[in-house]
Parts: sequence; structure tokens; C-alpha cells
Amino acid sequence: MDYDKESVELHAKLHGKLGVRSKVPLASKDDLSLAYTPGVGQVCVEIARAPKRVFELTIKCNTVAVVSDGSAILGLGNLGPEAAIPVMEGKAVLFKEFAGIDAFPICLATQEVEAIVTAVRAIAPVFGGINLEDISAPRCFEVEARLQDLGIPVFHDDQHGTAIVTVAALLNALQVTRKNLSECTIVFSGSGAAAIACTRLIQSFGRIGHLPPAGDILLCDSKGIVHRGRPDLNPYKRELAETTNRHGRSGSLADALRGADVFIGLSQSNIVTPEMIRSMNPQPIVFAMANPVPEIMPYLAHDAGAVVVATGRSDFQNQINNVLAFPGVFRGALDCGAKVINEEMKIAAAQTLAAIVIEPVPERILPDPLDKTVAFRIGEAVADAARRSGVCRA
Amino acid sequence: MDYDKESVELHAKLHGKLGVRSKVPLASKDDLSLAYTPGVGQVCVEIARAPKRVFELTIKCNTVAVVSDGSAILGLGNLGPEAAIPVMEGKAVLFKEFAGIDAFPICLATQEVEAIVTAVRAIAPVFGGINLEDISAPRCFEVEARLQDLGIPVFHDDQHGTAIVTVAALLNALQVTRKNLSECTIVFSGSGAAAIACTRLIQSFGRIGHLPPAGDILLCDSKGIVHRGRPDLNPYKRELAETTNRHGRSGSLADALRGADVFIGLSQSNIVTPEMIRSMNPQPIVFAMANPVPEIMPYLAHDAGAVVVATGRSDFQNQINNVLAFPGVFRGALDCGAKVINEEMKIAAAQTLAAIVIEPVPERILPDPLDKTVAFRIGEAVADAARRSGVCRA
Repeated sequence: MDYDKESVELHAKLHGKLGVRSKVPLASKDDLSLAYTPGVGQVCVEIARAPKRVFELTIKCNTVAVVSDGSAILGLGNLGPEAAIPVMEGKAVLFKEFAGIDAFPICLATQEVEAIVTAVRAIAPVFGGINLEDISAPRCFEVEARLQDLGIPVFHDDQHGTAIVTVAALLNALQVTRKNLSECTIVFSGSGAAAIACTRLIQSFGRIGHLPPAGDILLCDSKGIVHRGRPDLNPYKRELAETTNRHGRSGSLADALRGADVFIGLSQSNIVTPEMIRSMNPQPIVFAMANPVPEIMPYLAHDAGAVVVATGRSDFQNQINNVLAFPGVFRGALDCGAKVINEEMKIAAAQTLAAIVIEPVPERILPDPLDKTVAFRIGEAVADAARRSGVCRA
Repeated sequence: MDYDKESVELHAKLHGKLGVRSKVPLASKDDLSLAYTPGVGQVCVEIARAPKRVFELTIKCNTVAVVSDGSAILGLGNLGPEAAIPVMEGKAVLFKEFAGIDAFPICLATQEVEAIVTAVRAIAPVFGGINLEDISAPRCFEVEARLQDLGIPVFHDDQHGTAIVTVAALLNALQVTRKNLSECTIVFSGSGAAAIACTRLIQSFGRIGHLPPAGDILLCDSKGIVHRGRPDLNPYKRELAETTNRHGRSGSLADALRGADVFIGLSQSNIVTPEMIRSMNPQPIVFAMANPVPEIMPYLAHDAGAVVVATGRSDFQNQINNVLAFPGVFRGALDCGAKVINEEMKIAAAQTLAAIVIEPVPERILPDPLDKTVAFRIGEAVADAARRSGVCRA
């Protein structure tokens, strides 16, 4: 199937993928008087009197904004807010289909941190959560950080959605290969938003998840291994240089992979060779998630000895697909009235997602992305974690 | 039926009145690949290459934002953006049910002109039109005026929706009473956003609608008749003082009504007496639209000689209800790719709405608000007027 051609045809035929629907009948004068004037006035008055009732009397309790500035659309780069609409519509459709959440695309005609933050604050009243999407690094970090006081969850899916699914996949891959996280060296290719979020979530597992800390993590960017001695690091990489690479290693990606247990690629196509895989410890785990062409093709990785291989693609085994995380994370956060999505909730999501696969095997470390029970199971775990960690509205 | 109580119960049961729905199936991997990645990437690329295609390939062509800051909710005043949500949801439901338009409520956490304008510009990419709602005067004028360059229609319904339905009702009331607009004196009680918009639309009829100009228009505010000599007028009233009240009359509402033909009330309950109606010219027309209690109760107006009486209420004859206008106006504007909603389009809407009532009689000068053919007939007329006046996208 020619996905490109058929997708354009589908979008042209339907004029987009999303519509709204009324939950109330409008057949009689009474219907109109209850859904609209005069009856609706009393609903407004109730909310003005008791602001918390907005979560009971309006769509806010089940509505999420999918917000992008179009600066980093998929792997396509900065195509602007209009070109981002099809992706955000798609995301909204996934929210609905997998978690029953009413999500709506908001594509912003600005790419400045200050203006994005201002716009999201301005539109927040209607929404119960904000899913940030396809906003380029490093602005995405600042935008997300500055919105954490909004009183509703603000979650950058390219960071945390990817991290949750990657960590879930990693937990099951470790089980398959009988490795311990505490003894593994994990090498990232790429040190952008997703890699940073994955690193932080793995580190949180050490602190919060009652697992021993990971053996070591090495991040590699286009200049090689990230270490404290490098003068060229942005503030985010500098911070990670402090908490990763405990032996102060330097060198190339190939150097990093020598003796490593896990490769996690969030970078560029075809930059890992079979030789590099062969230089890893026995039973290597390889997640090559560059899109559309992975860092190394799965058959090459397998031939070089990789035991578990995952990619971002639906046409290979073990697809690491965010749709396994974000619908459930927001389902849980909305259901329990969480004000934020914290590390405890992300860990609960990753652990639950991993546990849904009863008996992981090399060719199946994650559930099917089309499994519509996943989001609700994750949702329950996320809501529990939110309540336990005390981040729900009173 | 106790509308207040039942409406609150309905809203609590449903948690709001609006949902989103997916227009695409998501049952197979292929479905996912077409609606989302990888297929959707090519749709983004097409829009980046040819920006106009955003109207073909996304929801933009049929999607309207219903935007409020909650500063003037119905007749309840400034209750803030959260309390405005039930009204904006209701509006969105009406857009869907009467015109098939996918509308979404946007309630802004700011009440400053500059910030409202900035927020609407920021969110505009996804929307094909902006319906401003329940924003208090005089800020609503400036907000609307400053957004006219957005490239999509921006329409303040409390002004123009009310004006269109009022003028349509007036045209038919004049027919019933065999009066000519060119010979009538029309008195407004109230000189806020709706009264100003009605006045302007009546004046536009003189210029654009190929009708002779109205005889005279008198606006009354709480201080009496608006005239050039008054030092206390805001800029909007000052402008109207130049184009109304051609004989420079001063005095009270009672003075204004003496010898008038038409009363249009957009003000306060019970401020018109039967004596005032009796002082009008023979066969007076009385539109008493204060909510929930009109300027004069219909039976009192009839007893005092009024031939045609209309109110804003659904439980009396001749309800002047905006739902007769805004769905059709936006239907037409979206269908023809109009960049603005100009006077020609509003006049076409008013004339079409009037003409839908084949034979107006005193107790029926407007169609039933539940008539679902109205919006589509208005839409065609509005689209024609937009094309003729050259305001459609190339």
C-alpha cells in the first residue's frame, strides 16, 4: 500500500479526520431551553459560585488540547502550524479511539516560548489537560516546565510518551535476556528531547521505582559521547553529563557501544553498523527508533547477534509506538483529577504497559498498538499513582 | 418545566454537551498508517508546499471557534471564562445541529483586548472562522475590528447575529403593517453592542440593500435620547449620534417613542409602559427583547395597540433568536471561502431569513427556531453575496 498517496487521498476526501458531536437532543423547544437559553444560565451561575463544578458541569473533565507550534513535525522539521494540523488531528483521533478522551487540535501561529506559554494559559479554561506535541527542542523543555503550575496536566508526548513506551519495552527486553537494569550500560544515540526524557525516566526508576539504579547511561550526540569535559553542551546536556557517564568516558558512538548492553537510537538512519552491535556485551538489546529508516535495519542487528530488536515502525516486530502510552496516561490523569503528570505516574504507566505482556519473548515485548484495553489498564495504574503521590485536586 | 434545575441536572449527568468523533476507522494497522504515521507525513508536506490545501486536507474548512472571555455571559454579567463554557458548548451544539459545522468552545483566561486579540491570532490556524460571543462592550468592538485581517471570518454574534434576526423580523413586521422602512421612525432602548449593530445594519440597508434609507433612528440609553449635544457619549455612541437622530431630538425614552413607528428594546425589563405604546404612530411594532423579562410584556403591548410584538423568549410568539442567523451565516462563509463577513452578507442573511416566511402575519414574522432548513438557505444567500462582493479566497 502506498501510504503517502492513499493518506493524502483519504484526507482530501474527508476534509480532515475529526468532527464534533452533540451529546444532547435538539428536537423540541424544551431541548433548546435546557441545552441553551434560558436553562444554561443557571449552569453558568453554579460554576461561578463553585468553580470546581466546572469539572462536573462542562466538557473540561474529559477534554484535552493537542497543542503544537509545528516546529518539529514528525521527522519532517519545522513546517509551521498549518502543516501540523493533520498530525494533531490524528493524535486527537487516537485519544478518542483508545481512551474515550475528547481531544482537539490547537496549532499555534507562533514559535516563541513566551507566546506559546501565554497562548496555552489563555485557552486552558476549557481543557482538562494539555498534550504538547511536535515542538522542537530545547524550547519544548521550557514551555513544558513553565506550564506545570496550570492546575491541569501538561505533558510533552514526544518526551514522556516516548520515554514511557521505551522504558516498558526495555523492562521486558531485560526480562527476555535475563539482564538486570542495575548492571546494564545503556547507550543512547541522540540526545534530544526524547533521549533526555528516556534517561530521566530510567533514572527515576532507580529513585522511585524501587529498582536498583541503572548501571550506567551514555548519551551520544553528533559530536560523540556526552561528558563533563565537553565545552559545547547546552544546559540540558550539561545537566545530564552530571548524572550519566559515571566513568567519564569520551569518544564516538562506536566507542560507547563497546561492552554496552542496550542501544537506544533516537537519532539518524543507518548510523549503527553490525560491527558495533558485535562489540556489545552478549545478548544485546537494540532499539533503533529513527524514522522512517532505523539506525540499523532489524535483520542486520539480528544477524550481528542482537536478541531483542525494536523500531518505531509498524511493519517490523516490536513497534515502540507512543499510542501505547499517552491515551492511558491522560485517561488516568483526568479520571483522578491529577494536577500534573509526575514521575510516579510515568513509572506506573511504564510498569503497567510492560506487565500487560504476560510472557515477553524476543519478538513481542510490547502489546499490539491496536489493543484497546491497554489505555484503560494504564489509566487505572496512573490514577492510583497520582492519588498515592498526592497530586490530585481536592 | 423548571429549566434551571433540569438544565443543571442534564449538564451534571452528561459532563457537558459536546464530544469529538473520529471520521476515520482505526481497526487495522493500515488504518493507523493512513490516519497517523507514516502516511500523515505526506499530508503535512502537501500543506507546507501549498498552504491553501489546509482547507482541503484538514478540518479547517468546517471548523469554527466559539470564543468568549466570559465578561458578559447572557444577561448574567462578568462570571469569567469557566462559567462561560456551558454557553459556548451550547453554541457549538447549535452550530453542529443546525448547520453541520464543527464548532469548539474556546474560553479565554484573559479579559484584555490586546491579550484576547493575541490569543485568537495564535489559535487561528486550525479554524475556518471565529465566532466571538459574550464579550462585553466596548471591548467587543475593538477585538472584532482588530481581527478582521485574519483571513477567516471573525463575527461577534451578540452584535451581528442579533442584528440580522432583528432586521429580518423588522422587514416582515413592516410588511404586516404595510409600513415603509423609509418612512419609519425607529426607537432603540439600549445603545450597547446589539443596538449599535442593529442600527448599522438598518443603515446598511439604505446604502447597500437598494432600499430607501430609514426615516429616522433614535437611540436611547439610561440618560435618554442620544444626540450630538451630549457630552457624556463614548466614541461608539458619538459616532452614531452623527448618523441618527436627524432632527437633533433630546429627552427621555417616552419622548422618543411619541410618534415613532417601531420600538426595539435591547435594554431592561419593564421600562416601557402602555402609555408609551399608545403615544406611538398607528400600528406600532414592538420588539421587547430584554431577557428574561421584556421591556413590556407582550399582552400589555398588544392591549395598548401594538400590532406586531416580538421578544427574546421561546414561550411567546415571534422569538428573536440568534440561532436563526449564525449557523447559516457561517455555513455560507465557510462554503464559499469568505475571508470576512461583510455588510452585503449580513443583508443577504436578513433578507433571506425574512423571505423564508412566505406570508408574514402578526403572530409569525420569523421561522421556527427549530427549522433545520433555515441555515442552509441562509448559507446559500450569504455565499452568493460574498462571491458578488469579492471577499472569497482566490
